Amino acid sequence: MKIVVDAMGSDHAPQPDVAGAVQAAKGTSVEIVLVGPEEIVRGELAKHDAAGASISVVHAPEVVQMEEHTMAVKSKKDSSMVVGMKMVRHGEADAFVSAGNSGAVMAAALFHLGRLKGVIRPAISAVYPTVRGHCVLLDVGANADAKPEYLYQFALMGHVYAERILGISKPRLGILSNGEEEGKGSMLVRETYALLKKSQFNFIGNVEGKDIPLGLADVVVTDGFTGNVAAKLSEGLMMALAKMIKAELTKGWLPKLGALLLLPGLIVSLPGALLLLPSLRSFVRRLNPDEVGGAPLLGVRGPVIIGHGRSNAKAIKNAIRVAVQTVQGDMVGAIRAGLSEMGGTFAAEEGEDAELK
Amino acid sequence: MKIVVDAMGSDHAPQPDVAGAVQAAKGTSVEIVLVGPEEIVRGELAKHDAAGASISVVHAPEVVQMEEHTMAVKSKKDSSMVVGMKMVRHGEADAFVSAGNSGAVMAAALFHLGRLKGVIRPAISAVYPTVRGHCVLLDVGANADAKPEYLYQFALMGHVYAERILGISKPRLGILSNGEEEGKGSMLVRETYALLKKSQFNFIGNVEGKDIPLGLADVVVTDGFTGNVAAKLSEGLMMALAKMIKAELTKGWLPKLGALLLLPGLIVSLPGALLLLPSLRSFVRRLNPDEVGGAPLLGVRGPVIIGHGRSNAKAIKNAIRVAVQTVQGDMVGAIRAGLSEMGGTFAAEEGEDAELK
Repeated sequence: MKIVVDAMGSDHAPQPDVAGAVQAAKGTSVEIVLVGPEEIVRGELAKHDAAGASISVVHAPEVVQMEEHTMAVKSKKDSSMVVGMKMVRHGEADAFVSAGNSGAVMAAALFHLGRLKGVIRPAISAVYPTVRGHCVLLDVGANADAKPEYLYQFALMGHVYAERILGISKPRLGILSNGEEEGKGSMLVRETYALLKKSQFNFIGNVEGKDIPLGLADVVVTDGFTGNVAAKLSEGLMMALAKMIKAELTKGWLPKLGALLLLPGLIVSLPGALLLLPSLRSFVRRLNPDEVGGAPLLGVRGPVIIGHGRSNAKAIKNAIRVAVQTVQGDMVGAIRAGLSEMGGTFAAEEGEDAELK
Repeated sequence: MKIVVDAMGSDHAPQPDVAGAVQAAKGTSVEIVLVGPEEIVRGELAKHDAAGASISVVHAPEVVQMEEHTMAVKSKKDSSMVVGMKMVRHGEADAFVSAGNSGAVMAAALFHLGRLKGVIRPAISAVYPTVRGHCVLLDVGANADAKPEYLYQFALMGHVYAERILGISKPRLGILSNGEEEGKGSMLVRETYALLKKSQFNFIGNVEGKDIPLGLADVVVTDGFTGNVAAKLSEGLMMALAKMIKAELTKGWLPKLGALLLLPGLIVSLPGALLLLPSLRSFVRRLNPDEVGGAPLLGVRGPVIIGHGRSNAKAIKNAIRVAVQTVQGDMVGAIRAGLSEMGGTFAAEEGEDAELK
């Protein structure tokens, strides 16, 4: 399997991107293609011991910066994003991984890889941990402003993802809202509710923010703005809890008590001990963006994994792991099949976009 | 001080509403007025020992149901919400507390209490705990669909709240977005960003979901849809963590190990022990809606506290405590003064609304 990795994606590119690629390739049969300005990428690669790793470099002189407009990919035809995407389009690679500007990655995917038949707008999907297992949350960032027909299709793609990749039969579908009752919600939510109510999905209606971690739904649809806030807030809350536990354990009466009782090790390992609890550890890990690595962009004609801008080497390595799983599970094929069976409503023809829809 | 409590507000009214009112009144100088259908309210009150509590009942035969449209308050002039709001308007009480439909409470406040001068739309404010202290998050539910000028005013009210009630000088103001960089965000966020950038606030730009618990801003403005999802998601995540710790500690190898080591007490009290860490306990408590009780509706001409629909007696008691603090801190006076000093932009005349703006 061959995975193209955007060497210029992350905020601190090319360092974490190249390091993560080396880690992912070492000791596995995965072939990595690093795409970016050849001299820079080879210079960075030379810092690593890449023995036993299958890594090649493809030259792409241009770079799409994090603060650039999404549409920069239109003019930058020799950027790592465009070159990488075209390799997947032409079957020269199996998947593309980038920790770059997510709007730009989506635009590059639309222009150079194309949408699946039936898809108006692709969505970034996240698998959110719950007390019962997991929940597919989408969109978490591709479409800051959405329309009811986008959300309807996110529901369709999320349904297919949950059913065919996660193996959940008849996934319970909810729409994220600011109240449980029908009629609660923004205009977008109320209009989408009406569409979903008459659909063939196992639609359970509005779900509130608390219902996601509590596992009330298997698929939760929302616009990319709210979904992004939800995913990052969860991440921040876990970081805040970890910081507070750490701060408390190094000051105040507790370490003193520990010293008094000659048990400093026990006291300091208290938060660590909690992570010995297997399901809790898994839950906390699945909210850590470095562990998650990246999220698949659903609805395009090839596997595209979008990583955090703040990705470190571990995050890039894990994003590549997600790419491998996405290829192995044939997620694109599954969504194409699901769309052709369940689609119909708001169908769009397959193909590359000349303009952003 | 006299607080009017909507006896018919919560999902399980009048039970929790009356019980919470009794708890709040007992042993304090706070006078409670329960408003609702007299026979029902007196019947419920008779179940309690209200000795030493100053509680009276005001008859309001109509009830606004949770699933009713917000505008039900227009026709239900004899509902507990309308009657309670009018008592505050006419100086017969100092504050109104309701755990009813928050949209209906806002509508009742607009029609029967009126907006402060300079306010286009009121907002529900929440004090979100952070690793450094707290952050005023608004709107958390009054306006599911917002406009840039609403958010500008939420910033103003949040600024006044943080400065005059929480004592934070030059509060750092952020706008919640799906990316840090200027230009990231929904259309609403990008338009509001432009307004805030040229304002007199200490505007720090876009903040992401993770930045709220990490304490990067003192005031975070957002629409009532996203704010509501953020607040409830945080609540749910803490509930999920608690559930998982509890489940783990009652099954698996850990209790067995505890039994083996004759230390079952230690093992079971592990999560409890974490809550002995003072700042962590405070953080977790401040994310528990029963502890928080209720959130002030800012921008109207009197203290109005909105509780969760799912309020239990403890939550109602705590919502009444918030009402007492709001009156004691003269929050309405502080916001009126702040608005007259800093307002001007998008000013609106003070008064009751004939129609919802």
